[in-house]
Amino acid sequence: MYAGIDLGGTNIAAGLVDENGKIVIKDSVPAGAKRPSGEIIADMANLVKKLAKEYGIEMSELSSIGIGSPGLIDSDNGIVLQIANLNLANVNLAEEMEKLTGVKTYVGNDANCAAYAEHLYGASSGANFSVMVTLGTGIGGGIILKNKVYTGHRFGAGEIGHLIIAAGGKKCGCGRRGCFEAYASASGLINMTKHKAIDNPASLLNSIPINEINGKTAFDFAKQGDHASQEVVDEYINYLAIGIGDLLRILYPDVIVIGGGISKEGENLLVPLRKKLREEVAFDYETEIVAAKLGNDAGIVGAAMLEKTVL
Amino acid sequence: MYAGIDLGGTNIAAGLVDENGKIVIKDSVPAGAKRPSGEIIADMANLVKKLAKEYGIEMSELSSIGIGSPGLIDSDNGIVLQIANLNLANVNLAEEMEKLTGVKTYVGNDANCAAYAEHLYGASSGANFSVMVTLGTGIGGGIILKNKVYTGHRFGAGEIGHLIIAAGGKKCGCGRRGCFEAYASASGLINMTKHKAIDNPASLLNSIPINEINGKTAFDFAKQGDHASQEVVDEYINYLAIGIGDLLRILYPDVIVIGGGISKEGENLLVPLRKKLREEVAFDYETEIVAAKLGNDAGIVGAAMLEKTVL
Repeated sequence: MYAGIDLGGTNIAAGLVDENGKIVIKDSVPAGAKRPSGEIIADMANLVKKLAKEYGIEMSELSSIGIGSPGLIDSDNGIVLQIANLNLANVNLAEEMEKLTGVKTYVGNDANCAAYAEHLYGASSGANFSVMVTLGTGIGGGIILKNKVYTGHRFGAGEIGHLIIAAGGKKCGCGRRGCFEAYASASGLINMTKHKAIDNPASLLNSIPINEINGKTAFDFAKQGDHASQEVVDEYINYLAIGIGDLLRILYPDVIVIGGGISKEGENLLVPLRKKLREEVAFDYETEIVAAKLGNDAGIVGAAMLEKTVL
Repeated sequence: MYAGIDLGGTNIAAGLVDENGKIVIKDSVPAGAKRPSGEIIADMANLVKKLAKEYGIEMSELSSIGIGSPGLIDSDNGIVLQIANLNLANVNLAEEMEKLTGVKTYVGNDANCAAYAEHLYGASSGANFSVMVTLGTGIGGGIILKNKVYTGHRFGAGEIGHLIIAAGGKKCGCGRRGCFEAYASASGLINMTKHKAIDNPASLLNSIPINEINGKTAFDFAKQGDHASQEVVDEYINYLAIGIGDLLRILYPDVIVIGGGISKEGENLLVPLRKKLREEVAFDYETEIVAAKLGNDAGIVGAAMLEKTVL
């Protein structure tokens, strides 16, 4: 049995995971973002202990604990190198957790954990090489090569969101221009949808208040035949295809897994995306483009399995 | 002892290479691009036999023969899948060479061979992860991960020249818009220099006939203080940094090796490139950016060592 922890800015979710990647029990507690690191780590340790107790096993029966954390993680040593919303920078999470639990602990980047879970048990199961692209507020990524998480020279590989796909283009949150996530994240899509609403007063996009426009809006109204909404969807898919095309050209994986909120559009998103790739961007690549399968559980499952990767 | 063959559209260059990656003897014959495959293969076999004889060893003393070929190569089976200028499409080069020589033969893509040679014995020697970017007529690339050539799912990984870095931008020879090589290849630089000459009649760029402008012109006149030439160099380095930044974000290698004609500018190119990357594109990446060391020999040496990679 393994324990996996998905450490987020809002919640700490944890689960016990069996050899087949199945979560047998899970629970969560608030992350309490502003707290000192010691309190967060104590809560993670207590959560795992509680789950073990409820499931009726000793902590010593855990093969390992894995933690998926946001930020830049030194996964060789279990140290958080950079992190935005939690007071964990320069903390050796692995060591601290081991002190509190007596169980060997691994730490990895959360997006890499999700990609790893999909690779082992989800949408890219069976692939030699897979890449996960998570379309959320930003764009997260994880690269799995031959069943190992690929983190490159200093753990920063797979920063897919900040690929520059449009030199001199839209301003990105990172300060540069033309990043993939400025166009193809959920935020990018919402931004595009709002601009289109303003420029097309007759569009159905204006049938809801502009601040209620979300990542589903353009897809929903396009289905109802709204022309401006269809333009947004087409433009969005064009940029998504360009970024994914860049991944194909560099990495040529067997499978690309699309995750995050936008991936819930399913074939509605994937059919035109595959067509765009095949006809205009990447031609004869044989890479499968599929939606993520494990949803929010991917973070727990991938973290639990970190001991299986040489990070 | 190994034999390495660098198969080009113009010449077939071959050499015997020792365990330390040193070419002990080499020679070349014209490729004769329009000939049937059998003739080309016979010439390759005879060239290796001639070298062995001249060096005074038996063919049976060769550990293997490696061929670096342009095009898309099924390096698992030694088959040329796609190729532009030689009649070798769908030919099993490995099998045919083995019939003629009695020596185990490996085949790989030529850009990958050059990258592999630099990784083993050249500019990226000692790196865990390295990427070679060759700035020639197009942009070639090779990715080496932990001493193995990385070719992805179906041998097409590392197509760095066709990364889209400027969606909707300059037309590329491949038919798409905004590819890295449309901006940052030697051809891209020459094109940029010619346009700048036309738009700046007072520039030194107009002191030579426009059709004599080459990949050195802007660099040379910039050194003499020509403003328009400096603008070309700055613009060129900006685009080069964007493409290399994309490689850093996806792969985060220890070393990026810049090869091809433009790399002869050396630190004149690399100093501003590193500055651009650090200050505007990639911030705190620790990747070394260096010029290739092995020159034209890289193709022979990398091909000779193909048996050492699981392709």
